[in-house]
Amino acid sequence: MNTPITLVDTSLRDGMSSVSHRFTADQVATVARGLDAAGIPVIEVAHGIGIGASSIQYGVAAATDEQYVRAAVAAVRVSDIAVLYVPGISTLKDLDACREAGAGTVRVATHCTEADCAEQPIRHARAQGMRVMSFLMMSHKLEPAALAAQAAKLESYGAQVIYVVDSAGALVPSAAGRRVAALRETVSCDLGFHAHNNLGVGIGNALAAVENGATFVDGSLCGLGASAGNAQTEVLAVALDRAGHDPGVDVFTLIDVAERIMTPLMAQPQIIDETALLLGYAGLYSTFFHPTKRAAEKYGVPVRDILIELGRRNVIGGQEDMIIDVAAELSGRLSAVETS
Amino acid sequence: MNTPITLVDTSLRDGMSSVSHRFTADQVATVARGLDAAGIPVIEVAHGIGIGASSIQYGVAAATDEQYVRAAVAAVRVSDIAVLYVPGISTLKDLDACREAGAGTVRVATHCTEADCAEQPIRHARAQGMRVMSFLMMSHKLEPAALAAQAAKLESYGAQVIYVVDSAGALVPSAAGRRVAALRETVSCDLGFHAHNNLGVGIGNALAAVENGATFVDGSLCGLGASAGNAQTEVLAVALDRAGHDPGVDVFTLIDVAERIMTPLMAQPQIIDETALLLGYAGLYSTFFHPTKRAAEKYGVPVRDILIELGRRNVIGGQEDMIIDVAAELSGRLSAVETS
Repeated sequence: MNTPITLVDTSLRDGMSSVSHRFTADQVATVARGLDAAGIPVIEVAHGIGIGASSIQYGVAAATDEQYVRAAVAAVRVSDIAVLYVPGISTLKDLDACREAGAGTVRVATHCTEADCAEQPIRHARAQGMRVMSFLMMSHKLEPAALAAQAAKLESYGAQVIYVVDSAGALVPSAAGRRVAALRETVSCDLGFHAHNNLGVGIGNALAAVENGATFVDGSLCGLGASAGNAQTEVLAVALDRAGHDPGVDVFTLIDVAERIMTPLMAQPQIIDETALLLGYAGLYSTFFHPTKRAAEKYGVPVRDILIELGRRNVIGGQEDMIIDVAAELSGRLSAVETS
Repeated sequence: MNTPITLVDTSLRDGMSSVSHRFTADQVATVARGLDAAGIPVIEVAHGIGIGASSIQYGVAAATDEQYVRAAVAAVRVSDIAVLYVPGISTLKDLDACREAGAGTVRVATHCTEADCAEQPIRHARAQGMRVMSFLMMSHKLEPAALAAQAAKLESYGAQVIYVVDSAGALVPSAAGRRVAALRETVSCDLGFHAHNNLGVGIGNALAAVENGATFVDGSLCGLGASAGNAQTEVLAVALDRAGHDPGVDVFTLIDVAERIMTPLMAQPQIIDETALLLGYAGLYSTFFHPTKRAAEKYGVPVRDILIELGRRNVIGGQEDMIIDVAAELSGRLSAVETS
């Protein structure tokens, strides 16, 4: 035990999704300064969806990714600043701009069955001397062995840390642990875990991941993040300590940053409400919720029935057009029952 | 897998502590009716500290325990109504009144080293035909084998379900699982787990308990409860389902009850703030927080230093007078450092 853990705080990236990407560069600097003082080794910043995402479609951020990175870099003494790269949204040009602004790490995120899409940015970033972490998103959609096969590809491209990412907050600790264990048997690079708290087990999953070989764990202050939010960084640090691991941070300073810097910046506390729980139960991205609500009203079908059916059909981000099909189909079924 | 689990909802007892024991009998009836409709088999009601606790010292409840029990019994069709008995606070007369009002189950709670104190009420309740569950509170204070020895006593008195109770929310899943496993090897009655969420692992601990042999699990709607609150019943039900167990309830009705009945009754959402986290880290009852805050101001010592030191000294409920000693001592040490 007493495994040294690298905590990665994503309040200023995943947390951006909870504030419609409207943290200012000054706010980013203030939070980053606090995280640095607490000893958080890696701080992820920029648009919640990834660099280059600021747009009417994904939400216009309060500053450019480059401005966010510069603000964070100027505020910290030792923390490494990381950015998120999503193939199809981010470009190598976006990445180069962030690297020139001082980002030392890139996290390349692909759907868990699409590791191939990460090859180009991983090779590019490594060639530029960046540290590369790689995300297998929606990991609950693949069984451990298949997920490990995708991880092997990422390692062959040059990923230095490979993350099991529970994008929908749909994993329970046993399932999270099995996935990390399968990767641990397959690749030799470092492993990480990124939780969402929809089933209330964000921190439980992170601990299970560490017990199975992960040494990088993501969190966000006060749990700030999309849907039910992330593992709550300051709570995660204490839980890791209590579980006999070394979170490598000053937990009391971290608690201060959460309570005195982040809490006042939050529009509402991060809780697990009906929406968050249904998304976790169905295993869907949070982007599915609002369009589903609209379709539910239009077709007179319960929101939960549409979400659960979408989950059964294994839809992923970008397939929101399926919502209407499912709503119409369920509506037809309901009518058939009512008239029979 | 697919273990059938008995969910016990304690929103109307442990949750009472979050509303200063001010739920009305009508509100108790409304919530109980919803829980019953969702299929929750056991509903705990009455004063947050236990039956007979309504007083200036522990807080005056909005109704008597007997009135709460009668309101709940009249509202449900199939759920069993349970009450909490704390030796030293509750009396056998209190218990008889609740039994006559219709309570079918009593939960007898003692500090984890004091199982002996449970003998009288357990034998009495069994003789009256009640089902008896027994709580080993502050279970983080005893190693698994010692805790199991206390459980053996409870079983010898007639306890039908023995709970590992994480009163301070200080356990992590591995530690919770080890304690339940030790009990499983020692006693033959059913086992339960009661979580608090101070380290963010209330549900993670409950799942670990189930994996190690517990079949009764407590929760509260929206997590309502003292300090960081309990395992959130409706989330726990979904997590149990996702982990391959049978929560034995209609999760969608349960989600409705949480969102449409409990949420509007809550003064504030249940989150893990600095106070809750420090209490979990120190392993202390929530009753220690406010007096510690006052002592910290008086002696000019940080709250966290006093709490952590109190945790080191293994104080338990009733020993709040130690706060002043510790604050004064730490203050002396600080002065010595400052003047040296």
